[in-house]
Amino acid sequence: MTERLYLFDTTLRDGQQTQGVQFSAAEKRQIALGLDALGIDQIEGGWPGANPTDSDFFRDAPATRATMTAFGMTKRVGRSADNDDVLAAVLDAGTPAVCLVGKAHVFHVTTALGVTLDENREAIRASIAHLVGKGREALFDAEHFFDGYRADPGYALSCLRAALDAGARWVVLCDTNGGTLPAEVGRITAEVVAAGIPGDRLGIHCHDDTGNAVACSLAAIDAGARQVQGTLNGLGERCGNTSLTTLIPTLLLKEPYASRFQTGVSLEGLAGLVRLSRSLDDILNRVPNRASPYVGASAFAHKAGLHASAILKDPTTYEHVPPETVGNARIIPMSNQAGQSNLRARLAAAGIEVAPGDPRLAHILDEIKRREEDGYAYDGAQASFELLARRELGLCPQFFEVKRYRVTVERRKNKYDRMVSLSEAVVVVKIGDRKMLSVSESMDESGTDRGPVNALSKALAKDLGPYQAMIDDLKLVDFKVRITQGGTEAVTRVIIDSEDSAGHRWSTVGVSANIVDASFEALLDAIHWKLIRDGAPSQGRISSGQAG
Amino acid sequence: MTERLYLFDTTLRDGQQTQGVQFSAAEKRQIALGLDALGIDQIEGGWPGANPTDSDFFRDAPATRATMTAFGMTKRVGRSADNDDVLAAVLDAGTPAVCLVGKAHVFHVTTALGVTLDENREAIRASIAHLVGKGREALFDAEHFFDGYRADPGYALSCLRAALDAGARWVVLCDTNGGTLPAEVGRITAEVVAAGIPGDRLGIHCHDDTGNAVACSLAAIDAGARQVQGTLNGLGERCGNTSLTTLIPTLLLKEPYASRFQTGVSLEGLAGLVRLSRSLDDILNRVPNRASPYVGASAFAHKAGLHASAILKDPTTYEHVPPETVGNARIIPMSNQAGQSNLRARLAAAGIEVAPGDPRLAHILDEIKRREEDGYAYDGAQASFELLARRELGLCPQFFEVKRYRVTVERRKNKYDRMVSLSEAVVVVKIGDRKMLSVSESMDESGTDRGPVNALSKALAKDLGPYQAMIDDLKLVDFKVRITQGGTEAVTRVIIDSEDSAGHRWSTVGVSANIVDASFEALLDAIHWKLIRDGAPSQGRISSGQAG
Repeated sequence: MTERLYLFDTTLRDGQQTQGVQFSAAEKRQIALGLDALGIDQIEGGWPGANPTDSDFFRDAPATRATMTAFGMTKRVGRSADNDDVLAAVLDAGTPAVCLVGKAHVFHVTTALGVTLDENREAIRASIAHLVGKGREALFDAEHFFDGYRADPGYALSCLRAALDAGARWVVLCDTNGGTLPAEVGRITAEVVAAGIPGDRLGIHCHDDTGNAVACSLAAIDAGARQVQGTLNGLGERCGNTSLTTLIPTLLLKEPYASRFQTGVSLEGLAGLVRLSRSLDDILNRVPNRASPYVGASAFAHKAGLHASAILKDPTTYEHVPPETVGNARIIPMSNQAGQSNLRARLAAAGIEVAPGDPRLAHILDEIKRREEDGYAYDGAQASFELLARRELGLCPQFFEVKRYRVTVERRKNKYDRMVSLSEAVVVVKIGDRKMLSVSESMDESGTDRGPVNALSKALAKDLGPYQAMIDDLKLVDFKVRITQGGTEAVTRVIIDSEDSAGHRWSTVGVSANIVDASFEALLDAIHWKLIRDGAPSQGRISSGQAG
Repeated sequence: MTERLYLFDTTLRDGQQTQGVQFSAAEKRQIALGLDALGIDQIEGGWPGANPTDSDFFRDAPATRATMTAFGMTKRVGRSADNDDVLAAVLDAGTPAVCLVGKAHVFHVTTALGVTLDENREAIRASIAHLVGKGREALFDAEHFFDGYRADPGYALSCLRAALDAGARWVVLCDTNGGTLPAEVGRITAEVVAAGIPGDRLGIHCHDDTGNAVACSLAAIDAGARQVQGTLNGLGERCGNTSLTTLIPTLLLKEPYASRFQTGVSLEGLAGLVRLSRSLDDILNRVPNRASPYVGASAFAHKAGLHASAILKDPTTYEHVPPETVGNARIIPMSNQAGQSNLRARLAAAGIEVAPGDPRLAHILDEIKRREEDGYAYDGAQASFELLARRELGLCPQFFEVKRYRVTVERRKNKYDRMVSLSEAVVVVKIGDRKMLSVSESMDESGTDRGPVNALSKALAKDLGPYQAMIDDLKLVDFKVRITQGGTEAVTRVIIDSEDSAGHRWSTVGVSANIVDASFEALLDAIHWKLIRDGAPSQGRISSGQAG
C-alpha cells in the first residue's frame, strides 16, 4: 500500500530568484509544459502584479494537468483582505491555486513587519479565508519556520493552525535562509506532526545553503510531510532550492521511498529527466553541470580503471541505479566497444546505418575526440555531429564551397550626429565550376545594423544558385557563445539553432579563436545540413575537409 | 569539552578521478600547500606507482604540517605483502601514512576479485600489518562498506576488525558507488560503533550521487565517526566526493558541531576558504559555480526585494552565517524585482552614498528598467550597473571618448593554400583635446587570429595615454552571448568577465543587434569601471551618454 507524495515545483517563481536568471513569458510557458510532461503535481508560475513578466505569463498560461499556482504574500495588517491591492493582483491571475507567504517567526513579525503577533496571525487567517472564499485552493508558505520554531514553537505552530483552520490545503515549512541542518529539519517536522498538524497537509521547502537541501527534504518526508517543493536543476535564491532533478529519481528509484510512495511522475516521465534538465540549461545558456547527481554528463562516467573493468562485468558493481532510468548514459573512457554501439545508435537515429565493427566507427570516434579537444561540443549540436559522421563515411554531398570572405564593422557618427554602426560582407562562393562574388550590408527593415554574422549570412544567401530556394526559409533563432578551452588556449564556441518555415529546429557548432569565423562555420553547417535533409542535388562528393 | 574531529582530504587522489581533471605534479604541490594552510589534518596525494604524475609528486612532496598519505590497495591474494610490487611502490613513496583500499562486500570479493572471503580478510590483515611493521600510520578504506554491510553485516564488520587488530589507525566506511542515503549511513555507522569499532578510529568517505554526500558525512559524524574524508569543491569520480568546502564551514560555524567539535581549521583559516576554492577553479580553468554553498558568488546574493529590504535592517534575517566568515561577500543584485532599498545597499557597497528618498534613486531604477527592456541584464553585470548609476548621479569621470572604429575580418587561403583568417581594427579615441588613431591586428604569439573583439581591444589599448598602465593587466576571462529580446526585435547581449593581476573579477554588459558593437560596449564598461576603481584622473565629468 503506497502513500501519495506530492511534488510542487517553483522553478518559475523561486527559481527566478537565481542571480542572472530572468525568464521571458514564453520561456516560462516552455518550462511549465516540460514540468507538466514530467508529472509535477503543482506549478508555481510567479508573482502576478509584482513582476510584469509574471503577469504576462498568467494572462496566457498554458493548459496543464498540473495545478497552476500563483504566488503572493498575506494581506497587510491594517486593511482587509478585500482591500489589499497586492493580494487582489494575485487573485486576478485566475489560477486554481494560490500560495501566500507569511511570517511564522516572532523576530520577523516584530522586526521586519513591525506588527503584533496577533495581528500577523490574523492576517494569515484572513488571507487564507479570502482565497478559500473565492474558491481557490490555498497554500500557506510559513517563512523561516524552523528558525521561528526554535525561537517560539507555540507561536510558529499557531500560525500553521490559523492557516489550516481557515481552509488551507497545505501549510509549508520553509527553511527560508537555508541554514537548518537535516537532523533538525527531521526533528522539528516530527514535532509539528506530533502537535497535530496532519502530514498530508504539510509541505517542505528547503534551500541549499549548507549543501543539504535534498537531505533536509528527505528528512521532512521521513518525518511525515507529504508535499515537497523544489526547482529544476536546483535553481533558486542564493545557493538554490531543493533540486527536484536530484530528488525525484531518489524518490522513484531508491528505498525506502520507491516502495513507500507514489508520485505523479511515471518511470516513462523519469526517463525524460536528462532532456528536461538540459532544456532548462539551454534556455539559460548555461553550461550543464557535468557532476549533477543522476543527470550530469559525468554522473555515470567511470574513470578509475578498477571501476571501469568491474562495470564491464556487471554495472551494478559501481552504479547505484541504471543510467537509462533517468535518460542518462554510461561513459567508459576505456571502452571503445561501448562508444561504438552508442555511436551506431546515434547514426541510426539520423538515418545512417553502419554495420557493427565497421572500422570507420573508430575513425569517427577518434575525430570526435580530436575535435572535442579543440573545443567542439557535439552533445548540443546533433546536426554538426551528423555532418562530421557523413564526412568520415564519405556520405557528404558537395554543394558549394566558400573560397573567401571579408566582413567589416564600422561605427561612427551619422549625418544626424548619432553613433551608428554598419556591417558589410563580401563572400566568394564556388558552385561546380562557377565562382560568384556577393556583397551585402546587414541593415534590417528598420535601418538597424544586425552585425557581421547577419551580413555574411545575407551575402552568402544572395547567390547560392540552385540551392537558394531551399535556404530561403532558414532562420537563425538562437546563438550561444562560450569561451572554452581548445587545446592549450581559449577559443570561442558558437552554437547556432536554426529553424525552417515548418518549425523544425536543428543545432550546429563552430569553433575558432575568432568569433566571426566560429559563427560562420556553424552557419555553413546549418545550411549544409538543411540541403542534405531536403535532398538537394550534389555537385560531387567529398569525404572530408571543409563543409559548405 | 570539545572532541577532536579529523579532516582527511583526497582532492589529489579521488578528486583526480573527476572527468576531465588531470593535475600536474606542480599543481598537486600547489593544492597541497593550500590544504595545509587551511588546516587539513591529512592529505592523500595519489597512488604512487599507478600514475607517473603521482610518483613525481611524492618524489618532491612539499613539507606540510598535515600528514602526507599515499594511496594503494591491499596486497593480492596468493603472494605475501613483502612480495607485492604494487604495495611496494606505494611504500616506496616514503609517506608517514598509507591508506589501502580493500573489499568488505561479499559480492565484490567473490565476483570482482574471485577469491574466498577468508583470503580477502587475510589480505587486509597482512597488508595493514605490513604497513605498521614498516612504521607507517595505516588506514583501511573499506570499499562498498554500506552495501556490503546490508548484504552481510558480520563479514563487513570482520574486515574492519581485521584491519584494526593489525594496527590500523583508521578504518574508513566508504560509500563507493554513492547510493546510500543519509538515514541509512547514520543507522549503519551507529551499528558499527555499537558492534565495538571505536568511533575515534572510524572514518567516513561519501560520494554525491544522490546529492547527499555532505548530509551522509554529517550523519556518520552524528553516529560517532571522527574522521571525515572529502575534496575541495567536491571534486571526484562521477558526481564527486563530499565537498570539504561545504562541510568545513558547517562544522565550524553551525550547531551542534561548532560547540561539540574541534578541527585543525581555525576561524582565520576558514576566512581564506573562498580564495582556496577559486584557486582550484583557476588551476582547472573552470568557471566557479556561483551557487556553491558558502563560497559561491551567489551564496549571499539577495535578489528578492522583500529579502533585500530586511537584510538592510538586519543581515541575520536572511543569512544563516555572516559571509565574511568564509571570505565571501554579500551581494544585492539589481533586477526588476528590486526596490530602492536594494539599490541604496548596492550603491553603498560601491562606495556611493545616496540618502533614502533621493529622487535620483527612482531615475536610476527607471533607467535600469528601460535598459532591461532593451535587453540589458544587470544581475550578472555589477560593474555596468555601477557605471549606469554613476552616470545618473553625475559621478562618472570622463576618461576618454571613442569617436569611431572599424574592424575587418578576412578569411582566405594563405600562401600555403590553407584557409586562415585575419582581423584588423582601427580605433579613434579622444582624450582631452587629443585625438589618436590606433590600428591593430589580432594575432597572438602563435599566429592565431583572436578575432574582431580582440583586435578592437588591442587597438584601443595601444594608445590610451595616461590610462594605459592601469589597464595593462586587464584580462578577458569569460564571454557570454545571448540572443534576447530588445523591445520588439532580437538583439545580442554580451556579458564579459574581466580580471586584473590581483585576481579581482568584474562583469559588464553590452547590448546591440551587432555582436561586435555589443562586445565593444561591454569592453568599454570593463575598462571604465577599472579606471574608476583605481582612481584614474578624470578629463572632466559627464553625467550621461556613452561611457568610455
